[in-house]
This record gives sequence, structure tokens and C-alpha cells, in this order.
Amino acid sequence: MIARVALRIAFLGDSMTNGTGDPTMLGWVGRTCAAAWARGHEVTAYNLGIRRDTSADIHARWRAEVSARLPAENPRALVFCFGVNDCVPENATPRVHADATLKHAQAMLAAAQAIGPVLMVGPPPVGDDGVNARLRALEPRLAALCSESGVPFLPVLEALLADPHWIAEARAGDGAHPGAKGYAAMAALVDQWPARRAWLP
Amino acid sequence: MIARVALRIAFLGDSMTNGTGDPTMLGWVGRTCAAAWARGHEVTAYNLGIRRDTSADIHARWRAEVSARLPAENPRALVFCFGVNDCVPENATPRVHADATLKHAQAMLAAAQAIGPVLMVGPPPVGDDGVNARLRALEPRLAALCSESGVPFLPVLEALLADPHWIAEARAGDGAHPGAKGYAAMAALVDQWPARRAWLP
Repeated sequence: MIARVALRIAFLGDSMTNGTGDPTMLGWVGRTCAAAWARGHEVTAYNLGIRRDTSADIHARWRAEVSARLPAENPRALVFCFGVNDCVPENATPRVHADATLKHAQAMLAAAQAIGPVLMVGPPPVGDDGVNARLRALEPRLAALCSESGVPFLPVLEALLADPHWIAEARAGDGAHPGAKGYAAMAALVDQWPARRAWLP
Repeated sequence: MIARVALRIAFLGDSMTNGTGDPTMLGWVGRTCAAAWARGHEVTAYNLGIRRDTSADIHARWRAEVSARLPAENPRALVFCFGVNDCVPENATPRVHADATLKHAQAMLAAAQAIGPVLMVGPPPVGDDGVNARLRALEPRLAALCSESGVPFLPVLEALLADPHWIAEARAGDGAHPGAKGYAAMAALVDQWPARRAWLP
């Protein structure tokens, strides 16, 4: 018999983690957790995605927000997903340079692993080719850092660029965020990921 | 023509605000915001409900969490819902006495009103008659405080005690939290509330 897990999971990220633009209010976080419930796991999700947050913003707040939500006496886990806002230009330069993104990621992953099991989902694409080009350079660096740190990493950039809905919905919306179909595609990638299934069979 | 409002709303509360126990992952917060989207309002929800939080816990964290999420340059609003955990006994006395609950509520409402429009939803019932008796005493005191403060207050206790699903789902579950039907009933109360409709017609 497979043990049913009543995990409390903190999802740390930006607007993509928040599910901004999804009229169903589920986003990829809600959909993947509802899928876990459908398999019998009574998960509690704490969605800590904030619009416009860079890796620097998340680095500044994640620890206080997680410690208020994940007491040591309950099974707990953490999922990170960031990088898109780091790659958005402001005054012709990215809001956070890739070297700093990696530094923030390394600090967060190391500290988070002391709390519980950690996963990292790579940054999804947006409707802007320049940002996507920077994300394409960032993704393998995040993957390499995760590999060194022993944190499972799920790249989603190419799959969502090839998805029939993600970019179309983003361009039809605010240019950055997909709608329900795009988020459903991202949720399917996360839900089918073996590293995630290891938590919630 | 009715203006469509792209509000960012912070929902501050406990497990009932988190939607704990709802296999759909929507809770009352997700359902009321999805209803606003269905009427054309592109709301962003920040669900800041934390399991086991009393009014003291929320008082300690709400300001930092809200200031990270509701920048002044975007339309913003706040919804509070707490009190259940204050009324839960620990060593034969309520975790937070009603006088202290009122003090925390007064401090939070006053400071929140300086940020944006504020609503307060009264605490919902649980599967325990003793806790519900304390909630029945607390509700009119919260209502009176809100009235003095000019904050619209929605009592939900009696309506949810009378709801065919809320208590039944709570007793069939962990004793405290309803399932999808109970949360849908609470969402309907909030969604039909004129004070809420004034934000999102």
C-alpha cells in the first residue's frame, strides 16, 4: 500500500507561481495539488508567488514566510520557481544579472534543504523574444547548480514555447502571463515529473 | 459602463482562508475571485491564510507580507478572516482570549485602512460545539468593532451552521475543515455580499 502523504508545501516564486492571469484561480500550483488530492494526498499548499518578484526579492523574504507556514512537526517540502523577472530589462539591462540570480538560488537552495525536500522548476517563457533568449541562457546554469546541490530541476522553457497555448495566451493577454490552458500545460509537466511523484505517488 | 477593476487583494487569515481540506484547492478565496473574473475583473489574489494562526500570529506577520505584495502604484485591497483558532482551547483555556482578539483586530484594521479598502469576514464554525459557542460570543464583538471602524463585516457563523454541507464535511474530515461543498457555500455568502460587490461589481 502506498502511504498517503499530508504534506505542507511552500511554493516560492513570482507571478507565474501566483497564477496571475488564470481566470480559474488555480494556476499550475493549484492544478498540481488538486491532482495530488485526486490520488489521495491531502496536501496543503502555501502559494508564495508574488508579481514582479526577482530572485533577489524572493531571497529577501522566503525564510520568514516559510518559517511561519512549515512547522517542524508536520511533513513539509519546498518548491522554487523564479528567474523570469530577473531577465526582464529595466533601463536596457536585466533587472538581475545571471551571476546574481545564481548566487541567490544557491543561497536559497542550501538553506531550504536544511528544512525539507526541495524541488526547483525552471522559469517558463513569456511573450517577449528578448526575455526568452535570456531565459534560454539561464536555464542550463540553474540546472547545473541544482545538479551540484542535489536538488531535482525541471526545465519547462522549451516545452512551453512549443505548447499550443502558452505563448498564444500570453500574447493575447498582458504579454507575459498565459491563461487557463497555458497553466494547465505547465501543471501537467510538473505533475508528471518523477521527482514530484516521488513526494506524492 | 461598469469599470473593470484589476485589484490585487490580500486575504489574511487561518486555515479556513487557506482552503485547507478542499480537494479542488480553491477554498472560498479562489471561488470568490474566480467569480469576479467571470464578471470581467482581472483580480490577483494573495492567499495569506496559515493553518493554526490566531489573531496574534496574523498580527505579527500581516504587515510585512502585505507590503511585499501590494505596491502603492496598483489598485489594492485587504480582506481579514480570523478568530477560529483564538477560540480553540489549549490547556482548558482559549488560545487567545476574546479581549486580546479584539485588540489585535482593532490594530490590524486601523493600519490596513491606511493601505486600502478593507473588509472583514467573520469566523466560520467548526465541528466542535464548545468552539462554536465561543465563536457565537465573539462574532457580535467583531461586528461592533468593524462598525465603529467603518469596516464592512460579514457574519457567516449561523449561515454555515445551517448549511447542509459545512458541518457534515468538517465532521467527516478532520473535525474542523469542510470540503469543496462547504467552501462553496462560504464563497457564495462572500460573493453575494454587497460590500464585496462594491469592489467588484
